[in-house]
Amino acid sequence: MLVRFPPSPGEWQEKHLKAGIEDWELAHGVVLQGERPGIAKALPVTMYPSPFSRSGLSLGLEIQTLYNALYHSVINDSNWVIEQLRGTAKYDQFTRNLIEIFEKSLPKRTQKLTGGIFRSDYLVHELSASKESRQIKQVEFNTVSVSFGGLSTKVTELHRFLCENGLNYVHGDVNVSPSLQEIASGLAAMHNAYLKTSNDSQPPLILFVVQPDETNVIDQKLIEYELLEKHEILGRRVTFEQISRQVVLDEHNRLVYLPRGQVVSVVYYRAGYSPADYPSEMEWETRLLLESSHAIQCPSVLTQLAGSKKIQELLTHPDIIRQFVDNEKAEQLEKTFVKMWPLDDSELGLEGQLLAISEPEGFVLKPQREGGGNNVYREKIVPFLKNMPKHEWSAYTLMELIQTPKVSNKIVRDGELISGNVVNELGVFGTVLWDLESGEELMNTQAGWLLRTKLQSSDEGGVAAGYGCIDAILLPENTHASHEPSRRTTSDSLANLEI
Amino acid sequence: MLVRFPPSPGEWQEKHLKAGIEDWELAHGVVLQGERPGIAKALPVTMYPSPFSRSGLSLGLEIQTLYNALYHSVINDSNWVIEQLRGTAKYDQFTRNLIEIFEKSLPKRTQKLTGGIFRSDYLVHELSASKESRQIKQVEFNTVSVSFGGLSTKVTELHRFLCENGLNYVHGDVNVSPSLQEIASGLAAMHNAYLKTSNDSQPPLILFVVQPDETNVIDQKLIEYELLEKHEILGRRVTFEQISRQVVLDEHNRLVYLPRGQVVSVVYYRAGYSPADYPSEMEWETRLLLESSHAIQCPSVLTQLAGSKKIQELLTHPDIIRQFVDNEKAEQLEKTFVKMWPLDDSELGLEGQLLAISEPEGFVLKPQREGGGNNVYREKIVPFLKNMPKHEWSAYTLMELIQTPKVSNKIVRDGELISGNVVNELGVFGTVLWDLESGEELMNTQAGWLLRTKLQSSDEGGVAAGYGCIDAILLPENTHASHEPSRRTTSDSLANLEI
Repeated sequence: MLVRFPPSPGEWQEKHLKAGIEDWELAHGVVLQGERPGIAKALPVTMYPSPFSRSGLSLGLEIQTLYNALYHSVINDSNWVIEQLRGTAKYDQFTRNLIEIFEKSLPKRTQKLTGGIFRSDYLVHELSASKESRQIKQVEFNTVSVSFGGLSTKVTELHRFLCENGLNYVHGDVNVSPSLQEIASGLAAMHNAYLKTSNDSQPPLILFVVQPDETNVIDQKLIEYELLEKHEILGRRVTFEQISRQVVLDEHNRLVYLPRGQVVSVVYYRAGYSPADYPSEMEWETRLLLESSHAIQCPSVLTQLAGSKKIQELLTHPDIIRQFVDNEKAEQLEKTFVKMWPLDDSELGLEGQLLAISEPEGFVLKPQREGGGNNVYREKIVPFLKNMPKHEWSAYTLMELIQTPKVSNKIVRDGELISGNVVNELGVFGTVLWDLESGEELMNTQAGWLLRTKLQSSDEGGVAAGYGCIDAILLPENTHASHEPSRRTTSDSLANLEI
Repeated sequence: MLVRFPPSPGEWQEKHLKAGIEDWELAHGVVLQGERPGIAKALPVTMYPSPFSRSGLSLGLEIQTLYNALYHSVINDSNWVIEQLRGTAKYDQFTRNLIEIFEKSLPKRTQKLTGGIFRSDYLVHELSASKESRQIKQVEFNTVSVSFGGLSTKVTELHRFLCENGLNYVHGDVNVSPSLQEIASGLAAMHNAYLKTSNDSQPPLILFVVQPDETNVIDQKLIEYELLEKHEILGRRVTFEQISRQVVLDEHNRLVYLPRGQVVSVVYYRAGYSPADYPSEMEWETRLLLESSHAIQCPSVLTQLAGSKKIQELLTHPDIIRQFVDNEKAEQLEKTFVKMWPLDDSELGLEGQLLAISEPEGFVLKPQREGGGNNVYREKIVPFLKNMPKHEWSAYTLMELIQTPKVSNKIVRDGELISGNVVNELGVFGTVLWDLESGEELMNTQAGWLLRTKLQSSDEGGVAAGYGCIDAILLPENTHASHEPSRRTTSDSLANLEI
């Protein structure tokens, strides 16, 4: 049986469905912070869960623990990470500052455990019109401040509710992402590991480092509530500025949260990933204070640095990845790679330069720096490079374009309903904890998933900023999405929100 | 140990607490509908749960099933109810219209079961400065469209969270009201009883009759979600206008919801209690259609009529209440009564007129009609009556003033923090179902509670409209509230919201 996707149940039904979505969101905290305290607006979501290949999802979930282990292995070779980033640091102040924090904190550090909450992001790559040709290909690997783990659980629950309530007219299965529970469990495991390294008189708390103007507050609060409810662990959300006034090191190098006189077990960063998070020297000093303390860093500045595009690119080279994992694991991971090249003066860099100039239509040029809207696509690559002094080319990475299948959906956003062709981006969460001294792996878990869906802009290559939303995966029973292939891009994160 | 209430933890701590309250509310659907779809605002709540007497709460909870049974008994004597309201109907078009719906629907009715979700509202009455002298006294008994059962569960959970999270600095116990679950269970019991009276091919659904411009949407949606999740019963929220287009009677007098082709088991009214809900003849015709159908009415128009102040007043007279319940139960119920008089030409009416003129300082004058802001207090009663033709006096009921203890609290509302003296009003929910023919009681349950708290206006008698909020009960461990007695009023419901 062929069932059209998305459904077209009629105007009245869609109006009813839209209201049903908005009410459910407001009733379940699927919201962003509004203009003033006490005001919320419904999170932009798809009207229908998006069809997604079962094998693609399975591969993403299965391979997450290999990715976790790969980055654990890479990060444990701190000299290698820092060495590889020296080139980037030359022209990038932010990378330079992070390396400086790492180097300054190293001699002061007393905590041998280090944690991480990761997210590996994928697009679907379609080699031909056959659905069987679809594979997931990695867009990026995020090691700091990954977002939407809390709300992904809620949005998948929303789409499951709409199926059960008979409102959404789709056929298929919607599974609920356990990311909220898994991320909280990951933080609880770090907290409990910390307890074994300390003998504090009262229970410590987990510090959430957040941005002062955060709108994605509830995504973070959900994790805080889950920590208290399921694990009896207190969390406190604070900005760098608040930390600078309310957090100190005691004589045992423990981090103390003054308002409650409690020690901090884990510093969980939901800020600090962007230069904008460090407007003054105070924020850098605060980061150094945290990094130098006995609290477990989630992530450490070194782990944050390992998430840069340069490291991702290096790992796509067969000989490099095999320095960190065995051949069997490398082959598994390589299934999800597209090719990447530097544009520097190395041998690979020269190969990249040649490809960028001679066959630009198959590539995207990405700056090292995070942040959407700066990618350069296909035929725009050559004039872009020619307008730039050649020594600046090394600030960019060349990446094969991922060809995403053509799918349509509708987005409910700011009270409006928007229809169009969309691109689906899968994210798989992982939680890790290991011992930096012995290298022992204490936790390596796949921690649920996220589907973000973005409306294509009229420019085929780009994704309109601000039109991203959170989605759920509709696993096919008999659903059959239209699937004409079209060239899409490795896309940026949801505009104006965390990674 | 004496502990001051409310706590004064300092400005920084209260700012932190306020933000913690607002975030929790937005994350848990403790919200009112905002100005446009997809926007919510945090429900006004107290910053601290209010101290309340354990014996007062216990009495309210225990006596609820007696109240349910009393009203069941009263309503089963439909002739008596209608007869008593003839006087009110003379000058009140709304009462007249409701009686007409009752009389027109009577011969058409095929459903012998009738349901109700009630709420009995109380203030604390304090005879002396001793806490032992405190008693709860009934303000009114609501038989239609009682609200905040869903959100009361959430707000009590909020205050429990704040205690556990160490944010609110109070000492005592906060119990969670089970009203959300109990009201949904009550509706499910009605639904299941309906199933035994019908043989429909597919499962019926519950129709929620709502106002088109409702802001207290989530309070209703929470019950709808609970019905689906725990009882696998579908609910649909519709206005009278939508019903007029989308609901019909079939040849077996069953109510059919056309968009899904499903029969309606229960009509649950969250609208229809106010003349403003019937702007045209269409709404009255729609109410008649619903009332005449085989669907169980929750409540029937007769049950709605039995909730009027005239019936409440009559039941305060010892000989009248004993027509409906035995002496032992009457004595229990009378513990919660204050004295009430009509102002008509009956013997009691003449007694009431004399009291109103000679000792007005102990009384409040209430119009029969629902809706806040129309009560007349103490010394204002005499000039008010003298400015009115005497035959209109019978539109009013005279009620002894309830003397509430003086308590302070802070209210978080629209992003602001407001401090002051407050009045606490306890509501106790009840769910009922009985057989109109046999009189058999099929359900009689106490269904949780609600605490509403209102800031006193500068006018000692009134309660400023719009300053009500939802609260939780702090049961004393060692807490000790300041308790100078002061004269307060039987107060009105939360302004602009349902009963």
